[in-house]
Amino acid sequence: MARVVVDVMLKSEILDPQGEAVLGALPRLGVNDVASVRIGKRVEIEFDENAQNVEEQSRVIADQLLANPVIENFTLSIESGAVEGA
Amino acid sequence: MARVVVDVMLKSEILDPQGEAVLGALPRLGVNDVASVRIGKRVEIEFDENAQNVEEQSRVIADQLLANPVIENFTLSIESGAVEGA
Repeated sequence: MARVVVDVMLKSEILDPQGEAVLGALPRLGVNDVASVRIGKRVEIEFDENAQNVEEQSRVIADQLLANPVIENFTLSIESGAVEGA
Repeated sequence: MARVVVDVMLKSEILDPQGEAVLGALPRLGVNDVASVRIGKRVEIEFDENAQNVEEQSRVIADQLLANPVIENFTLSIESGAVEGA
């Protein structure tokens, strides 16, 4: 079974208020050595045993459903059994 | 500069409505080979050059601020220069 992880992050030039909020809260935990925090999504997709074209299908899902290409970038990583279906 | 990635995912026994929604939308994209989709958070933390105890500090941040231990698990991965500070 192929497992694909899609990481979706805001582009570096886009302000990330959620990350800023975490950064602002760190001194209350006694952490003062952090330069930046960015928060995005991690999506784990499990394909069926016999799925074909796993990478291509994952790219369609990420591009059309998971990421907003105006403000976000995504990276795909295929964790197991991907070559079988390719 | 050490860069730590914290992945926060719902525990496997916890229902993930966001993932279910994505799963339900896949047939409209022509994708019918997916067994499950789980959606969590990816947090990228950049520490200052001279930060000490990067792993320990990251664990505090993940445990006390980023993850809700009742419903979520987290994994840490230290991407660069971590050993210097350890």
